[in-house]
Amino acid sequence: MKTNEIPERLSAIRQFMEENKLDAFIVPSTDAHLSEYPPKHWESRKWISGFTGSAGTVAVTKDKAGVWTDSRYFLQAANELKNTGFELFKMGQSDTPDMTDWIIRQAGKSGTVGIDGLVYAASDAKALKAKLDAKGISLETSLDPFSAIWSNRPEIPRNKVFTLPDTVTGESVTGKIERINAELKKMDADGLIIVTLDAVAWTFNLRGNDVDYNPVAVAYAYVSEKETVLFIDPEKLTDEVSESYKKQGIKITDYDDIFEYVSGLPENSTVCITGNKINYKLLQTIPGSCKIIDVPSPVDLMKSMKNKTELKGFRNAMIKDGVALVKFYMWLEKAVPAGEVTELIVEEKLQEYRLQQDLFVGDSFGTIAGYAGNGAVIHYHASPESSQQVHPEGLLLIDSGAQFKDGTTDITRTVAVGKLTRQMKKDYTLVLKGHIALATAIYPEGTRGSQLDILARKFLWNNELTYWHGTGHGIGHFLNVHEGPQSIRTEENPTQLKPGMVTSNEPGVYRANHYGIRIENLIVTQEYKRTKEFGTFYNFETITLCPIDTKPIMKKLLTNEEIKWLNDYHKMVFKKLKKYLNEEERAWLKRKTKAI
Amino acid sequence: MKTNEIPERLSAIRQFMEENKLDAFIVPSTDAHLSEYPPKHWESRKWISGFTGSAGTVAVTKDKAGVWTDSRYFLQAANELKNTGFELFKMGQSDTPDMTDWIIRQAGKSGTVGIDGLVYAASDAKALKAKLDAKGISLETSLDPFSAIWSNRPEIPRNKVFTLPDTVTGESVTGKIERINAELKKMDADGLIIVTLDAVAWTFNLRGNDVDYNPVAVAYAYVSEKETVLFIDPEKLTDEVSESYKKQGIKITDYDDIFEYVSGLPENSTVCITGNKINYKLLQTIPGSCKIIDVPSPVDLMKSMKNKTELKGFRNAMIKDGVALVKFYMWLEKAVPAGEVTELIVEEKLQEYRLQQDLFVGDSFGTIAGYAGNGAVIHYHASPESSQQVHPEGLLLIDSGAQFKDGTTDITRTVAVGKLTRQMKKDYTLVLKGHIALATAIYPEGTRGSQLDILARKFLWNNELTYWHGTGHGIGHFLNVHEGPQSIRTEENPTQLKPGMVTSNEPGVYRANHYGIRIENLIVTQEYKRTKEFGTFYNFETITLCPIDTKPIMKKLLTNEEIKWLNDYHKMVFKKLKKYLNEEERAWLKRKTKAI
Repeated sequence: MKTNEIPERLSAIRQFMEENKLDAFIVPSTDAHLSEYPPKHWESRKWISGFTGSAGTVAVTKDKAGVWTDSRYFLQAANELKNTGFELFKMGQSDTPDMTDWIIRQAGKSGTVGIDGLVYAASDAKALKAKLDAKGISLETSLDPFSAIWSNRPEIPRNKVFTLPDTVTGESVTGKIERINAELKKMDADGLIIVTLDAVAWTFNLRGNDVDYNPVAVAYAYVSEKETVLFIDPEKLTDEVSESYKKQGIKITDYDDIFEYVSGLPENSTVCITGNKINYKLLQTIPGSCKIIDVPSPVDLMKSMKNKTELKGFRNAMIKDGVALVKFYMWLEKAVPAGEVTELIVEEKLQEYRLQQDLFVGDSFGTIAGYAGNGAVIHYHASPESSQQVHPEGLLLIDSGAQFKDGTTDITRTVAVGKLTRQMKKDYTLVLKGHIALATAIYPEGTRGSQLDILARKFLWNNELTYWHGTGHGIGHFLNVHEGPQSIRTEENPTQLKPGMVTSNEPGVYRANHYGIRIENLIVTQEYKRTKEFGTFYNFETITLCPIDTKPIMKKLLTNEEIKWLNDYHKMVFKKLKKYLNEEERAWLKRKTKAI
Repeated sequence: MKTNEIPERLSAIRQFMEENKLDAFIVPSTDAHLSEYPPKHWESRKWISGFTGSAGTVAVTKDKAGVWTDSRYFLQAANELKNTGFELFKMGQSDTPDMTDWIIRQAGKSGTVGIDGLVYAASDAKALKAKLDAKGISLETSLDPFSAIWSNRPEIPRNKVFTLPDTVTGESVTGKIERINAELKKMDADGLIIVTLDAVAWTFNLRGNDVDYNPVAVAYAYVSEKETVLFIDPEKLTDEVSESYKKQGIKITDYDDIFEYVSGLPENSTVCITGNKINYKLLQTIPGSCKIIDVPSPVDLMKSMKNKTELKGFRNAMIKDGVALVKFYMWLEKAVPAGEVTELIVEEKLQEYRLQQDLFVGDSFGTIAGYAGNGAVIHYHASPESSQQVHPEGLLLIDSGAQFKDGTTDITRTVAVGKLTRQMKKDYTLVLKGHIALATAIYPEGTRGSQLDILARKFLWNNELTYWHGTGHGIGHFLNVHEGPQSIRTEENPTQLKPGMVTSNEPGVYRANHYGIRIENLIVTQEYKRTKEFGTFYNFETITLCPIDTKPIMKKLLTNEEIKWLNDYHKMVFKKLKKYLNEEERAWLKRKTKAI
């Protein structure tokens, strides 16, 4: 994107605002389905501002324009917004104005603020409206400036979808719909509106290709005892898929019909929605006579608790990913001293090795390969301009993942590519201690991720270090690499960890301009069976299979239990991968997994 | 209380309900000030049901009556409710109906439920009303059956109050009021209604004697830039106190005038309240034209962050409490083998030794002295019937505290009074490890207690043990031994730990019918100064001064760091207490604080 187009785009939206008597317009980074990563059609915030980070909100007034984003993107946004007419507002800093307050000051009394209700979370729109109302400012929610001013705007994607057999999903669509209806019954609800793309994909055992990295398709759904409706562009379905859904009693109707359908819901019926997972326009479409139950999506919870078949798929994906990673790291070990490695080459090579594996579909997110100071940029993604040569010195952080048709992976390793400083070794060992503490946690039923978060941070905190990102996110089964509802974070999240949930375990530490360290495995909550005197307890099974570099470890900082965990983990990695490796690879892995 | 009076009382309230066309009546355990421990005048729930626990709610319908209480009181409530006509509902058990659902079933459609809005938290009343509304049931909130049916009901207390000099509080009333007004200004609020008794006491540097253990006086207050009003029975004030308040520009008016005053607040003014800390009646009194800001009380946060003078008072109180405890435990050591000790005698002796200390006002709560199985009853309080002889065998748990005019204490020790089992020793050591882990925590600014809670539980969880109570509560400065807003609990509490907050550290483990273990010290949040590279970090200072029994420790389960903490703690205890002890006591303490 050439940044000199941005001022023109700003002028265009301001003219649109003037024509529509708006004093300000807000552009969030999400889409009609509240996606973290939207299809290109809905990347309006990127288009208008030139800021390409995954999280950020734009506000434009008559004479000012700003982008609000979080600390992960301060550097990147500052670069991308240069000479665009957009000001950067660094969220979380005490002198940064709240966006709504800023807009209120700009819009003045009796002004009008615009949003496109189609791409705005209903709960956010309501909160915004309440704040504006209190100041006598109107909110106009039905205008989409981008359909007018974005000339080459990409279409909503029409890629074909495909379905997964029950042998992969472990549960039929009708089984899932039965369970959803049972949940609705418990809440006295008549129906559920499903808006998020991964929830639709899970419910209908379908996958698509409409969003980079996330194998989802643009669609809505409505589930009730009476009927199940999938709202999807008919072009996306092959005859076979259509037929199969019809056989299962699923009504297929066009994507846009959702609005007419919802507006025609029976009078006085009770509709289950999730306030921050439904767009404002759709919420407003629900007839006034209906009762709305706003709760965390029952589908998200079901989706997060993987069944045995899904877990088997995950374990299989881990073996394939592990094999690819062994080949990759073996290559890396030789290629760095040979001067053959840049950050971009790391990305290419990783994909090359993964492509050799069965059922590989693509990366599960853009690979983060950060050498030295780039490793400290948490959401770094090498570009041809930024891509560094990896010298045989210091630390290289590689966070990558794969979509296999039987499971999704997400793994970070930080490896010594040469001589390390004492501080690097100490930092690495503290991160590893945190990783192990979380991996070995035992916790009672009912425990939330926010309670466990400190286990991964405690050793860093003891040294007055920390990391400003979450410790763990949920991972979909051949679905989005970030999914809810559980998380392991500092921030409160009322979701309890339940058996079958797959979560990441990824503490880190980042020394700006010097290096970044992160060690990430995926962990599965499972029942820990011994006594039941004090209730049911859970623990984690670590399923990622890849050696953790032992070179940077300061062994004297590890307890005997921690050393045992590491050695046991490595023993397992070797045992599970060895039969898929050739002799040379096996010898390499043997060395890398040697007990310390 | 003779339980045979309860059925008569039930009949009386049912007659009152019939006269007032009510299908159900709810009696909570709180008062007009939302106190955890109300003055006797408002102990209606105890009076009507005979259940004397601190937490519980009564619901009476035409032909049923129930008490809802939590696990701490299951045993006690079951005993106290025998043959009363009240059924016990054990909260937190899956087969226990929710009270409101139960009432809805009993009241039926178009019924009417009554509460006394004066003694019902506004937020609870609103939630109740919403649930009843949805079922077409009315809520009548203006009836107080107890003024009609409780013949010898105690008056609202009229005890004299006294004020504390700035040399004890560290801040003048005018200073506090200025700070409150500054907080109100930040929120664009015109005034603050103060309802809770400890918040009134703190704001006005006054203490009273209206509630057992809590040195508070029944009063309301209103603080605004324009005027500060203290609503209190004039009989409670000496001329001196009245004069002094007048000099400080504080308007004194009668207790009941709060309702007239609030109903007369200027039109369109903005009033700050706390929804769960204001009674429903008072909230309803605020004119409809006023804007209400419902936030956690700014006074509670200020009150919780003790200033230097208050902390000095606390430390002084700890020395006195420590001296009394040394004398007590020295006595105990001889008295148990001599067969001279019962649980009630423990309570008496403790008070006897504390009474010898300067500025002692009384116990800060009813002493919990639980021998063997009684130690496993978390809110145990020995009665003449239950009081056990303490035999020279097993564990004795003693949780007690003092109100000194310069500080409040709260301490639990569990001591070996004779031979212990392996399990006792292991459990004790796990609890101690948790206590030490919390005491030594280092955590960044912004950390909430719920994040730290696991530190105290982790070693128990590793052994599939836990305790079903919080790990830490705030403590007032010569005020309520339980105060907010911070806590260290499993449950989320958005309050961040701030420098000056005094919190308890009290993990435990309870083996029903066998023994209970708890180790409790008070800890103060303070800045941990080293680097600031990753922001500001805090740690705790432990201020309680009393040896932790080393006899039950399984030393091999402790790390070197844990042993060091214990030895350092004991060294400090000896150093700070020695000069206040006679030779024999000093020798005893030397022995008890010997390094392990």
